[in-house]
Amino acid sequence: MSEHPTKSASPSSVAYVQLDDAVNFATAIIAGQGVSTDHAVTIAECLLEADLRGVHTHGLSRLPVYVERVQRGLVNGAPEMKLEKPVAACASLDGDNAFGFLVGRRAMQEAIAMAETCGVGVVAARNSNHFGMAATYLLQAVKAGYFAFVFTNASKAMPPWGGREGLLGTSPFGAAAPSGKLPPFILDMSPAVAARGKIRLAEKRGEPIPEGYALDENGQSTTDASAALRGVVLPMGGYKGSGISMLMEILAGVFSGANFGGDVPDQYTVWDRPQNVGHFFMALKPGIFVTEQGFRDRMDELVGRIKANPLADGFTEILMPGEIEARLEAERRRSGIPYAAADLALLAKLAADHGVSALPHETR
Amino acid sequence: MSEHPTKSASPSSVAYVQLDDAVNFATAIIAGQGVSTDHAVTIAECLLEADLRGVHTHGLSRLPVYVERVQRGLVNGAPEMKLEKPVAACASLDGDNAFGFLVGRRAMQEAIAMAETCGVGVVAARNSNHFGMAATYLLQAVKAGYFAFVFTNASKAMPPWGGREGLLGTSPFGAAAPSGKLPPFILDMSPAVAARGKIRLAEKRGEPIPEGYALDENGQSTTDASAALRGVVLPMGGYKGSGISMLMEILAGVFSGANFGGDVPDQYTVWDRPQNVGHFFMALKPGIFVTEQGFRDRMDELVGRIKANPLADGFTEILMPGEIEARLEAERRRSGIPYAAADLALLAKLAADHGVSALPHETR
Repeated sequence: MSEHPTKSASPSSVAYVQLDDAVNFATAIIAGQGVSTDHAVTIAECLLEADLRGVHTHGLSRLPVYVERVQRGLVNGAPEMKLEKPVAACASLDGDNAFGFLVGRRAMQEAIAMAETCGVGVVAARNSNHFGMAATYLLQAVKAGYFAFVFTNASKAMPPWGGREGLLGTSPFGAAAPSGKLPPFILDMSPAVAARGKIRLAEKRGEPIPEGYALDENGQSTTDASAALRGVVLPMGGYKGSGISMLMEILAGVFSGANFGGDVPDQYTVWDRPQNVGHFFMALKPGIFVTEQGFRDRMDELVGRIKANPLADGFTEILMPGEIEARLEAERRRSGIPYAAADLALLAKLAADHGVSALPHETR
Repeated sequence: MSEHPTKSASPSSVAYVQLDDAVNFATAIIAGQGVSTDHAVTIAECLLEADLRGVHTHGLSRLPVYVERVQRGLVNGAPEMKLEKPVAACASLDGDNAFGFLVGRRAMQEAIAMAETCGVGVVAARNSNHFGMAATYLLQAVKAGYFAFVFTNASKAMPPWGGREGLLGTSPFGAAAPSGKLPPFILDMSPAVAARGKIRLAEKRGEPIPEGYALDENGQSTTDASAALRGVVLPMGGYKGSGISMLMEILAGVFSGANFGGDVPDQYTVWDRPQNVGHFFMALKPGIFVTEQGFRDRMDELVGRIKANPLADGFTEILMPGEIEARLEAERRRSGIPYAAADLALLAKLAADHGVSALPHETR
């Protein structure tokens, strides 16, 4: 949750896994923890959607930590989510400490249902957990023909602008709109200037990081990757990324009744309590203000003009937000998903530990 | 509309004007164009709110262009706005080519009214004009106790990421939430990395601009301010600012039925047609998910933690988005608003041309 997804088309040492095999594998592992098959399939599909789209930080690589949290009772494997709907267009969802994927899917579905009759629907969710890739729920809305906002809060990772200690999250700002024949708009962007993952890579390679990416543990700007990892990442655009991150905290945390302001514990390091993450989902019906077809035509006109803009020096194409990921998904649905050897080894260990058949894969 | 406001506490050669005098002056000028007194007061108050908050690019300095557009019939001085409300929580406002300030005030008022009963209210407006400072409508919602989003589209000023020709607007992303005793959250940020105003200032001073601010007219990155002014400003954070600007275009332009995708004409240079700007307003009621007082207490807790974050090197204080502007406003309500001599000269000419008493001011 605390990192912007790192996209990579082809890790250096890889094997390929077919989507169905991966979904079945993840379903078996999760269902083995007392989670119903329906729920396990949903969780598995969400994880695989991330891997399909190249967001490997939010895919199967997280399976071990999810399994450990449900095993230790820190995530509720058999939740009874409660929806309270005091007004026509807004609802509150108590996730009952369910997997975030289940809370997210349900909340977006309810937001869409309210938008169908009221034009707009908002669901704020509390008592949830890490919900994976925000694009999962954006795509859910776009496939149903709706505009959507999806925000979540997160464990502390970034200072407010001017500060030096982690307080705000770096979860993405998520917004999406359907189009007609041209690519839709799927914006899933971190308010941090750079993901910690990128800084880790620079450290591994012994390379400096650009000025402005991070502060060291004394609150001073640094280009040393190791010093940056002991410090904090900085918000993009100074006060702007800081403001966007506060927005996530306000809508997903303060509004919803969940933990907020640095109180969401990190799922990897805090093992004595549930996360109580908060999320915010909004669906908006395009056909309210212009006709639905009119909206799609107008979106195509906008997307067409964007893609036809004359290129700046150094570019070969203008891409819509989410377009690279959609292309990767299409390719990987055809030819399989590449996983690094190290990730497959972790999954093999997980399979052995839980008495599940190993994940079939193919080295090319 | 195409520029991020430039804040300046004290221009070099200044005189001070009292708020009431300035509102009366602007009201007289605008009412002299056949605009009703009620409407003229609203417009004048919006302009002065910008000057109070240090956003001089959106204050009285725009009065001449507004007057000229209404004189030439490009803005409708006696509009009949029409609200269509096909569903409970969303409405469409046809601005009838009114001043954007009137459309904005009315739209936010309707969004709040729907949020009062439905929890959330959305108004998309078309056939509008430049609406000044987005914070005007954010503050309207916050004073009423609501969270708000305020977006507008704008004339073309910035390429999409990867492009080199102006297509998207640089209007701000606006979001706000009330708090309790501590400062509220008032985010009004341009998706451009820097305002053209800043680049103009660098040109005047003969200084270079930082790499990444702008492209020259050939689409190449430049640090030469003059070359940058012949080219385009760049989005902040690359694809991120570009995505935020597309979001404004989609919600304010594509959704609303207004002009979009570069079709909104610049109010300073295009004199043969109305702008048909589009806006998007959303109000959300805090008391839906937690109690209203609970929300305010939680906001204060968040703001308090933000402001208490240990300082990074080079900072003396952590400010909430909008806090500098609120301090300026408080000071200027007490001691008057500073205007540059050049601005006062333009206003004196406007007064003479329209037979209105000159704006009283005091040199200190």
